Amino acid sequence: MILGGISLEEREISQAVIGRLPRYFRYLGELRDEGVERVSSQELSELMKVTASQIRQDFNNFGGFGQQGYGYNVEYLYNEIGRILGIDRQHKFIIIGAGNLGRALGNYMNFERRGFIFCGMFDQDPELIGRDVRGVHVRPMEELESFIEKNNIDIAVLTIPKAGAVSVAKRLAKTHIRAIWNFAHVDLNVPEWIQVENVHLSDSLMKLSYNIKRYAEEQERS
Amino acid sequence: MILGGISLEEREISQAVIGRLPRYFRYLGELRDEGVERVSSQELSELMKVTASQIRQDFNNFGGFGQQGYGYNVEYLYNEIGRILGIDRQHKFIIIGAGNLGRALGNYMNFERRGFIFCGMFDQDPELIGRDVRGVHVRPMEELESFIEKNNIDIAVLTIPKAGAVSVAKRLAKTHIRAIWNFAHVDLNVPEWIQVENVHLSDSLMKLSYNIKRYAEEQERS
Repeated sequence: MILGGISLEEREISQAVIGRLPRYFRYLGELRDEGVERVSSQELSELMKVTASQIRQDFNNFGGFGQQGYGYNVEYLYNEIGRILGIDRQHKFIIIGAGNLGRALGNYMNFERRGFIFCGMFDQDPELIGRDVRGVHVRPMEELESFIEKNNIDIAVLTIPKAGAVSVAKRLAKTHIRAIWNFAHVDLNVPEWIQVENVHLSDSLMKLSYNIKRYAEEQERS
Repeated sequence: MILGGISLEEREISQAVIGRLPRYFRYLGELRDEGVERVSSQELSELMKVTASQIRQDFNNFGGFGQQGYGYNVEYLYNEIGRILGIDRQHKFIIIGAGNLGRALGNYMNFERRGFIFCGMFDQDPELIGRDVRGVHVRPMEELESFIEKNNIDIAVLTIPKAGAVSVAKRLAKTHIRAIWNFAHVDLNVPEWIQVENVHLSDSLMKLSYNIKRYAEEQERS
């Protein structure tokens, strides 16, 4: 892929930059929905509360997105970032674990808007098997591998406890799954062809707790 | 607070270091549960798949935790990191938004183990008000401020759509709440005394999508 004359192949984009792209995408989507056609890095900077130089630096990783005259073309930039993020194509996902969190994610319509299609749900609990989450039946764990292969599933969402997650990840590693979105409170060991993105909710809550404490300590000192 | 002779007050600890502390805490908790008494930075490094020098550097921010002879005392290190994270004290939280995600978080017992106490739940939907989530009744939004003040709530968890989140954050900013754990897909503008930790699930999913694409492109090239 060639962007602004610089091929992506030539560059190693850091995960920190990648981590910021969805946020740009979100703000640009809002601007687009508001009918805004062009935006300067300065305006984007004020909106997003990051420096304009950070924005230009980030965008330069992708050839700069052709800023000219007065700023960037919002629609073009939105689409380009979407393409870089790979959400110009569809992804099919299953959810393993039909508990509260699994059902919450299954019911979350916004993922569909981004091309993430909810295809299947699995659990080992006989009480949950056969239930319906937004038109998708909960299936027994025995059918996991065959379902993935038959339906070309790209992503497995893990919303099961820690102990189960490790053994399920081993089973997934033998399928053609391409990624695991892991909500289990454990780091997974999977082959390099399976991408893993962790959402460790307890970790996030502890970070919040640290920042509460730090702010209180700063106040005591001043 | 004095740790290993270096007072925390003298140091500005970066959010990147803080972001890694919960993971150390998790691994040390597992070692402790397995009855391991001491661990070297080398062993921790192999377990956690980070370099031993990264570990030592991170720990040096807090005075090094007195590694001596053969490694660190697991129990001591676990407790110290817990204290730094502020989870040696209790935090009382409410959940605003009694939909699937809110209920999932309310039902998640692990938070309680870390001293995060689920005290109240709010929603504007008459259908949901009065329902029960793990013994906690869903209350109408009108009672939000009075409940927070009366019960000394520390943390508000926002599991409502984007539009509602912005106005609720404004209401929270007028209470004595100390932190917002934000699951709404929007960045919040709140006064500096309110700590915010965002869990933007769509952003995380897009990062996964990017890594799937990048891996596929690398394979095509090689």
